[in-house]
Amino acid sequence: MDTTQNEQLRARAQRVVPNGMYGHQATSLLPSVTPQFFSRAKGAYLWDYDGNRFIDLMSAYGPNLFGYCHDEIDAAYIEQLKIIDGATGPSAQFVELAESFVETVTHADWAMFCKNGTDATTMALMTCRAFRGKRKILIADGAYHGAAPWCTPIPVGVVDEDRAHFIYYQYNNVASLEAAVAEAGDDFAGIFATPHKHEVVYDQEAPDPAYAKAARALCDKHDGLLVVDDVRAGFRVDRDCSWHGLGVEPDLSSWGKAIANGHPISCMLGSNRAKEAAGSIFVTGSYWFAAAAMAASLKTLEIIRGSDYLERTAAMGDRLRHGLAKVAHEASLPISQTGPSQMPLIMFNKNEGGRDLALTFAFAEGMVKNGVHFHPFHNMFVNAAMTDGDIDDILTAARATAKSLPNLATYEVNPIAQMAFAGA
Amino acid sequence: MDTTQNEQLRARAQRVVPNGMYGHQATSLLPSVTPQFFSRAKGAYLWDYDGNRFIDLMSAYGPNLFGYCHDEIDAAYIEQLKIIDGATGPSAQFVELAESFVETVTHADWAMFCKNGTDATTMALMTCRAFRGKRKILIADGAYHGAAPWCTPIPVGVVDEDRAHFIYYQYNNVASLEAAVAEAGDDFAGIFATPHKHEVVYDQEAPDPAYAKAARALCDKHDGLLVVDDVRAGFRVDRDCSWHGLGVEPDLSSWGKAIANGHPISCMLGSNRAKEAAGSIFVTGSYWFAAAAMAASLKTLEIIRGSDYLERTAAMGDRLRHGLAKVAHEASLPISQTGPSQMPLIMFNKNEGGRDLALTFAFAEGMVKNGVHFHPFHNMFVNAAMTDGDIDDILTAARATAKSLPNLATYEVNPIAQMAFAGA
Repeated sequence: MDTTQNEQLRARAQRVVPNGMYGHQATSLLPSVTPQFFSRAKGAYLWDYDGNRFIDLMSAYGPNLFGYCHDEIDAAYIEQLKIIDGATGPSAQFVELAESFVETVTHADWAMFCKNGTDATTMALMTCRAFRGKRKILIADGAYHGAAPWCTPIPVGVVDEDRAHFIYYQYNNVASLEAAVAEAGDDFAGIFATPHKHEVVYDQEAPDPAYAKAARALCDKHDGLLVVDDVRAGFRVDRDCSWHGLGVEPDLSSWGKAIANGHPISCMLGSNRAKEAAGSIFVTGSYWFAAAAMAASLKTLEIIRGSDYLERTAAMGDRLRHGLAKVAHEASLPISQTGPSQMPLIMFNKNEGGRDLALTFAFAEGMVKNGVHFHPFHNMFVNAAMTDGDIDDILTAARATAKSLPNLATYEVNPIAQMAFAGA
Repeated sequence: MDTTQNEQLRARAQRVVPNGMYGHQATSLLPSVTPQFFSRAKGAYLWDYDGNRFIDLMSAYGPNLFGYCHDEIDAAYIEQLKIIDGATGPSAQFVELAESFVETVTHADWAMFCKNGTDATTMALMTCRAFRGKRKILIADGAYHGAAPWCTPIPVGVVDEDRAHFIYYQYNNVASLEAAVAEAGDDFAGIFATPHKHEVVYDQEAPDPAYAKAARALCDKHDGLLVVDDVRAGFRVDRDCSWHGLGVEPDLSSWGKAIANGHPISCMLGSNRAKEAAGSIFVTGSYWFAAAAMAASLKTLEIIRGSDYLERTAAMGDRLRHGLAKVAHEASLPISQTGPSQMPLIMFNKNEGGRDLALTFAFAEGMVKNGVHFHPFHNMFVNAAMTDGDIDDILTAARATAKSLPNLATYEVNPIAQMAFAGA
């Protein structure tokens, strides 16, 4: 696999960007063959600057729900851009999109738009505290809610006080949640929960309905707000808030990524119970009211409501899961597949127990070399531009990868990753 | 002036958005005739849904530097969007834009891109603290650096700890700055400064060169980082960082708004001294690495470097300032015009001293009714799509407004604004 152009771009980037790249898309923890830069995207595919094509199982880390460069959604963006985008005030699309979210998401009586997923979770944090003037926020231990000082998973450049009044509980553990509420006492403001447990490296876990219902009941009993952080999973597992299927409606939810198929917009949705509190906080951004991303989101919601994308991505995820299980069984590789099948986290364990990092990374490296953008420790995302044929191609790549694995005893896992995941 | 459609949109928005609108573009503090929603934008003009056209002196609160729906810049965005925008990694535009900023801004050796101005200031905050592991950050009292919990000007939904380890000094006051550094002692991390004093309601103030130089010297002496927050003023007063003309180069600067003529991108720039610290923090966002806004910013920087926009906007600002002074003099209105003339804050004082809120608001209302989007307490922005003819039209509107002012003794200033600015 030729990586010449990619290496040249990396070298140029090193000169003018700290570490050459930063954030969740930095490839510093990935097998070194993984491209850092991409030249073209269409549907389910990405091309790097060396002419290699990849079926992209990462889907831009979530935003790509219906395929890259989607004709209809991008046309909505471009048409709006020609009339008015960001201006001195919003356009009617602002109202229409809020109405569309209220129509789509059961718990939502209103919407507030922003740009980053972190904006939406930070607004939810502030709304919880504004609700009754209480301070204590319950967060599942290790959960990712963004990269601001209060939540960045690598707390460098932050002070201890940035996380004052947070109480950490164990996801899916009702007793732990109850203990955290008790600890909060009279200062209880609210509970944050991701719709399922989807932290990097660790196996994903479905939400225990008893836990979700306990979270709702505790917020009702102690007059706090329940927040479902749906930035990553929103519209991937339901056409509504991800806890709707459990019969649990939050007071607030945060959204981003897939809601405009990659165009830059995120939002906080809320119930009337939380409306006054949400209206009392001051949050804003220069580009938050721009119309083009709203037009794209309106079109995306229309397709979400009117197409069978959800059933198709779930079915393709199942096809992938079953196919990979077969490949792994044939090759006697102890595969670990967790999470909703359309948001798969795929790693490998040791026969004697524990994660097999060498096999996990070697497999991901082989997949990349065989034309599949495959992540060794982050959940991936099946998108609706994929076809059964693409899934079959991924399985063919997996079979080829399994047959030509390197000697794992001498395989060198990316040393930064090895250090980072030593405890996992 | 017909406002029927605008009122209907406001009513719809009230149902599905807290207060119907939020953030800096909410018109709740403005004369009630001010449109909340706009249907079309082109060059220097905005149209509302009732068919009223406005010369827009607000320029989207800053992003509009070269005119709305700019042919070349938007074409760069759209062409890139058709090839690749947000994906699983950045495109070459990421590297090219970092190189372009390094070429354009003297103090910059590297760049990190993000979406909101607040992202860029928050990254600077974290970088200061990561630099030597120190915590104390010096911020000018009342300065606006964004709307996150650590800096939102209306601290609802935040806790006291969000502002731990901040020390507030008086802008342009060297003694106050020195006292703050002394107070920080061994825990000094850095100094934040806006390029000039540009808070709402208060007269703008040019930076005293002695103050800027003291800030630089104190950061050198006490091993901290100097941050110029250029989000609002960047490229409005210089083709370089706004303090370049003073001979003062910061370690870090934050940018947004005008850098892509309104397309959603912001950035932190820094010197090699701060590069390792910047590389040690974990910050990210789903849309931060998207290529289309970078392509638009590359084109914007090209126009910034290659056109006379800066001299033209300054000259038009002067024409506006002198013309308004004449109109005010003829009508015996004690006008207050502060700030760079291309970023004018225009208010009125009482003859006996103190701000005349009634006249300030009545004048702004009259300007809106006469077709000029005019802000009573926020600095405005002359953009390069304006012509001398537009400035003359604004002066004609000002003359008409001055001639038909309402009875100020009975004029009702927006009561929310009156309350908000009672202390100013």
